[in-house]
Amino acid sequence: MLITFTTDFGVSSPYVAAMKGSLLRVCEQVHLVDITHSIGPQNVRQAAVVLADVTPMFPAKTLHVVVVDPGVGTERKMIYAEINDQQYLAPDNGVLSYLARQHTPQRVLELAETMFWRANVSHTFHGRDILAPVAGHLAAGLQASQLGPIHPVLAMLPWNEPQIEPDEVRGEVLCIDSFGNLITNLSAAKIKGWAGPSGIVTQVRERQISGLQTTYGKRSAGEVITLADSQGRLEIAKVNGNAASALGAEVGDWVRVRRAPKS
Amino acid sequence: MLITFTTDFGVSSPYVAAMKGSLLRVCEQVHLVDITHSIGPQNVRQAAVVLADVTPMFPAKTLHVVVVDPGVGTERKMIYAEINDQQYLAPDNGVLSYLARQHTPQRVLELAETMFWRANVSHTFHGRDILAPVAGHLAAGLQASQLGPIHPVLAMLPWNEPQIEPDEVRGEVLCIDSFGNLITNLSAAKIKGWAGPSGIVTQVRERQISGLQTTYGKRSAGEVITLADSQGRLEIAKVNGNAASALGAEVGDWVRVRRAPKS
Amino acid sequence: MLITFTTDFGVSSPYVAAMKGSLLRVCEQVHLVDITHSIGPQNVRQAAVVLADVTPMFPAKTLHVVVVDPGVGTERKMIYAEINDQQYLAPDNGVLSYLARQHTPQRVLELAETMFWRANVSHTFHGRDILAPVAGHLAAGLQASQLGPIHPVLAMLPWNEPQIEPDEVRGEVLCIDSFGNLITNLSAAKIKGWAGPSGIVTQVRERQISGLQTTYGKRSAGEVITLADSQGRLEIAKVNGNAASALGAEVGDWVRVRRAPKS
Repeated sequence: MLITFTTDFGVSSPYVAAMKGSLLRVCEQVHLVDITHSIGPQNVRQAAVVLADVTPMFPAKTLHVVVVDPGVGTERKMIYAEINDQQYLAPDNGVLSYLARQHTPQRVLELAETMFWRANVSHTFHGRDILAPVAGHLAAGLQASQLGPIHPVLAMLPWNEPQIEPDEVRGEVLCIDSFGNLITNLSAAKIKGWAGPSGIVTQVRERQISGLQTTYGKRSAGEVITLADSQGRLEIAKVNGNAASALGAEVGDWVRVRRAPKS
Repeated sequence: MLITFTTDFGVSSPYVAAMKGSLLRVCEQVHLVDITHSIGPQNVRQAAVVLADVTPMFPAKTLHVVVVDPGVGTERKMIYAEINDQQYLAPDNGVLSYLARQHTPQRVLELAETMFWRANVSHTFHGRDILAPVAGHLAAGLQASQLGPIHPVLAMLPWNEPQIEPDEVRGEVLCIDSFGNLITNLSAAKIKGWAGPSGIVTQVRERQISGLQTTYGKRSAGEVITLADSQGRLEIAKVNGNAASALGAEVGDWVRVRRAPKS
Repeated sequence: MLITFTTDFGVSSPYVAAMKGSLLRVCEQVHLVDITHSIGPQNVRQAAVVLADVTPMFPAKTLHVVVVDPGVGTERKMIYAEINDQQYLAPDNGVLSYLARQHTPQRVLELAETMFWRANVSHTFHGRDILAPVAGHLAAGLQASQLGPIHPVLAMLPWNEPQIEPDEVRGEVLCIDSFGNLITNLSAAKIKGWAGPSGIVTQVRERQISGLQTTYGKRSAGEVITLADSQGRLEIAKVNGNAASALGAEVGDWVRVRRAPKS
């Protein structure tokens, strides 16, 4: 079974390997792939964006283990979910909600059957003690229906719907990637009629950016540009540089895209 | 065969892959897992703590390759060790000594048979040239007894035994994890009778910390707390923050835990 | 099939996993190994050095996927190459040129057959949309000859040949590794007759360094030394420290090695 990991442990953390060891003790016939361990600490929203972007790329039936869990040790439930053609094990804290906005989950279960957990569950490391061994049991052939009862309501993060007007769309910075590119919640498709190289003006903070590029390679180094990212979202980038630093931009900043006046 | 890697090469280093390539050239039928490549440069003590924490989580007979080797090119030996139900390949510099304190090694051998090494052994990269091909040969079915003679004395790091008194225990900061949490050499079990939410006072540097929490989630962001970590050790953490920075704490700092006076 | 990845995405980037997912969708029977994702952004030269160092360590027929691609979306071609006993998928921007200097490529093909690509190829992420699915098809048994026509001329990076004189060799800093060691384009073999512990003087920037060490372990912490690295190249290192910071050195700096005058 193909199993991925998404955590906020940091790339330096040996806790990721502790989780993998715990899983492998239950079942060694697995193929493990890291999605990222660099989600900002407890940044459920960033993890939700990454999971929505990346997990649909994987083969059907891949199992994605997610440990971004500010509520570890509190009352939030651990869940198993089937969304589109993928499977997930995660805390129910909204981390699956951007996925669930795109495809209604087929099944969500609460992890309740402790016989599939580690013998001694710590208060602080449910990834190792609950999710990893459960993943191992699923890889070994356990039916998901054995994990626990139906979990009726999935936690959803607030989502600011972009505002679409005839000559303007307004959205926000969803997240900032490791190059400092600003990923927005605006779809490039929404402004399709407008574009052409100088058809739009994008505003983030005080910066006005003219045009919509199709690629980084077409502009000179240091220039701040708007382009459609590999997910079809509008993205603000600095060619060979870091747009977030250059603009002082942060997650949640408003992004406004206007159709440029005819000159 | 399941094989793990623990090094101080840094997560950016291609030398880890050079080691894996060298291993895979000998045997491709392996499952490779990274424990961490972010051990501080030449920080044998930190590696010893990580290995003692993480490697026992793995399935029996897993082979752990360790390259934290300030003595590369000097007289220290490279060894093969069986400790508890795991196997290790490492320099004999104390990196296995916290494991060996917990379980007397069943077998320690000196890597002496150069026929299992790379043809040209460099002076600076014994991980690639000795440990990796030896790991490959073990994966291909080589009996460990062929590697070399018995290595009679395992190098041990000094270990400051915690001091246990009726109303106070004193230990030290064993290591600092990637969240800035201070991991101590004090077992939460030692103060079991005392606790309750306000039963103890922990002192590190000038900071006094009241109480023993069961989880991060119960306290508010920014608060410095004492809790039992996922290994059962006392840990000092800053909720959603970095305790090491907040307290100016370093590895080796004394940690004092007193039973709180009845009020 | 054994498949490696070398990118400039950064260790934190989930885009590496997007690429792996895209590959695994085509073929799951693969063994994936990361070489590094910490190539400096668009630093084709650094990637060329890393590939020349590390990929020859892998078993014959390993497939190496390289995404360091400042020209994404421009006219540069994506290629398949066989060099020595390894296979590569990369943009044709010079990233394979240090390999090609060592061994004339047996075969270079342009990736032209779009049927082996992802259905919708983005403008900004050819690693996920072209190279990864092509790698998957090769793993599934596709003959490389099906990928496209012969690519007649491989892009080559400029290479400053070291200057060899009777008592002096001059080269340059090829790259700086994650420890801050300066890797030069000078082969230790060239000065073989000169050496002995005090036989040479190395100059980088204003710093003069006496002697040629065989290992880090022989000198005291903080000392800047010259040694032969694990590839047989001359390397300038600071024992337990960062030579690049200490010397203010950069890639491309001249490195001069003189035979020390007899005293």
